[in-house]
Amino acid sequence: MDFKQVTLSCGNGGKESLELIEGVFKPYLQEFLVADGEDGGVFRGSGDLAMSTDSFVVDPLFFAGGDIGKLSVCGSANDVAVMGARPEYLGMGFMLEEGLPIATLERILESVRAQLRLGKLKLLSLDTKVLPKSSMDKIFINTTALGRVLYPALSAKNLQEGQSLILSAPIGAHGALLFSLRHEIGLHSALQSDCQQLFGLLEPVFSSGYPLYALRDATRGGLAALLHEWARASLVAIEIEETQIPILEEVRGVCEILGLEPYVLANEGVCVLCVNTPDAPKICDLLQAHGGAPAIIGKVLGKTQKPCVYLKNAWGSRRYLEMPEGELLPRIC
Amino acid sequence: MDFKQVTLSCGNGGKESLELIEGVFKPYLQEFLVADGEDGGVFRGSGDLAMSTDSFVVDPLFFAGGDIGKLSVCGSANDVAVMGARPEYLGMGFMLEEGLPIATLERILESVRAQLRLGKLKLLSLDTKVLPKSSMDKIFINTTALGRVLYPALSAKNLQEGQSLILSAPIGAHGALLFSLRHEIGLHSALQSDCQQLFGLLEPVFSSGYPLYALRDATRGGLAALLHEWARASLVAIEIEETQIPILEEVRGVCEILGLEPYVLANEGVCVLCVNTPDAPKICDLLQAHGGAPAIIGKVLGKTQKPCVYLKNAWGSRRYLEMPEGELLPRIC
Repeated sequence: MDFKQVTLSCGNGGKESLELIEGVFKPYLQEFLVADGEDGGVFRGSGDLAMSTDSFVVDPLFFAGGDIGKLSVCGSANDVAVMGARPEYLGMGFMLEEGLPIATLERILESVRAQLRLGKLKLLSLDTKVLPKSSMDKIFINTTALGRVLYPALSAKNLQEGQSLILSAPIGAHGALLFSLRHEIGLHSALQSDCQQLFGLLEPVFSSGYPLYALRDATRGGLAALLHEWARASLVAIEIEETQIPILEEVRGVCEILGLEPYVLANEGVCVLCVNTPDAPKICDLLQAHGGAPAIIGKVLGKTQKPCVYLKNAWGSRRYLEMPEGELLPRIC
Repeated sequence: MDFKQVTLSCGNGGKESLELIEGVFKPYLQEFLVADGEDGGVFRGSGDLAMSTDSFVVDPLFFAGGDIGKLSVCGSANDVAVMGARPEYLGMGFMLEEGLPIATLERILESVRAQLRLGKLKLLSLDTKVLPKSSMDKIFINTTALGRVLYPALSAKNLQEGQSLILSAPIGAHGALLFSLRHEIGLHSALQSDCQQLFGLLEPVFSSGYPLYALRDATRGGLAALLHEWARASLVAIEIEETQIPILEEVRGVCEILGLEPYVLANEGVCVLCVNTPDAPKICDLLQAHGGAPAIIGKVLGKTQKPCVYLKNAWGSRRYLEMPEGELLPRIC
């Protein structure tokens, strides 16, 4: 293909659509395609299969530690991983704005390829659409992940008194980075998005034999939204120790400048595990051994008709950790 | 929820996101949701499963015979149906522009609901994203369909001499309608999109015992793109009888006004079946009995190193039917 930009004709379903697929997408994605030349792919299913779908519209497209391509693979793969499943197959739908430089698209596809290799993922279905200039912004990617369930029965409804909550890594890096880029805060810092695939971290826990009750990645709405959803689904109160929540210095810096709470910042490679309290230290050891930086951040207090999340500070006083509300940062993922 | 438009805060992953889901989406979609309150759903797989993903960006959102909601369910369900599978599960990702009237969204969701009911489909995963005004146009929907394969081994590579091609219904209605709307041609006609689910039409053929070799719905790029893809994949020449291709009068009218070939117009509920020639009339009877308006339109001529599609006219002379090329209508589906 000799054009340097995505043209409207690339969306015609004919000659130029084929050239876009053959000339731009396939050099990066061919090795993963299950059903070359067909609209979709067939795979063999047995047992329980988990599926999750997500649209990625992040702005800017590239940022320290990731880009929309990496994010779109990690995001959906993680949604399936936190369902107790091994992500195996992806469907990807690319929406492209007329005029998008082919070089930009290729940089994104290179990043998609790296993540597909890392996660040993296959592509069941690939769709491209081209939209006229100004009817969308550059590129959006929708990703659907599928995988076999290894650890069934995880649910937001499983929280009970006597369980502890483990955070897999420091919170807020992805959100803080995007806020600082969008507000053009020149931090000159080492702050990177936490965007990463979680299955490698979680598989040892699934096979460890320690009971797991709930598992979720803290994405949009951050740790606060996740804990609120769990409290509501299980009708419990949750108590979190503020001093136990790991937060990077750079993230604290951005929060101070912008007046944000780190608990509502988005993450793209951080999850919370709900486990039996006596097992928590050993599960932390497992996570630590597989690349995590875990911390036991709190516990489930017990049933209540008024589900809530308490944040306990260093002096022992408690306040409510509120559900995120109002306009947070759009296009964070 | 008391707001009348989708606000940016509806994308915060917190309180307002929940209100959008609970207050707007659930009244329409709750009955189909497999995994309420979780990021994705689990289903039991056995045997071969087909999956296909597609993004829908049609403009205008509403048109005679359909809308973006109906289209997004039919489109992905059909992609799975033409893989020889029964569509069973959907994942849907909604991208919403800030300011989209809730009434518009509800009209679309009503249409989604009607199609989910009709196709007996369940929702495994539901995602919503809100984008700031002007960074996208109103609403895009990505849909992924999953289903059990009933009729395996269908492939674009299966075409051989001695096979006939059946068209399930007249071509071009969806494309012609969209062209006429976009060019503001006031036809005052009964022209309606052909947008519909195909599985009900195809299931009797799958279970009839007549061998099927290839099956595809003729969407973007129309009949011409489909036949070219088959010719290339199988390395054959195909001969189509121009007089046998059913085309509605209203479609011919739009084609004449706009100087278009009906063969490149998009369809959203029309498919082509490749079958043994002796079986073709009986398969047409089956299709007819289940709501189709089929016609035997041509045959496979045999292997060649120069795959092509011939169009034979009423006087017996042949010309090449070309692969669609250049800028066709963007945002047709």
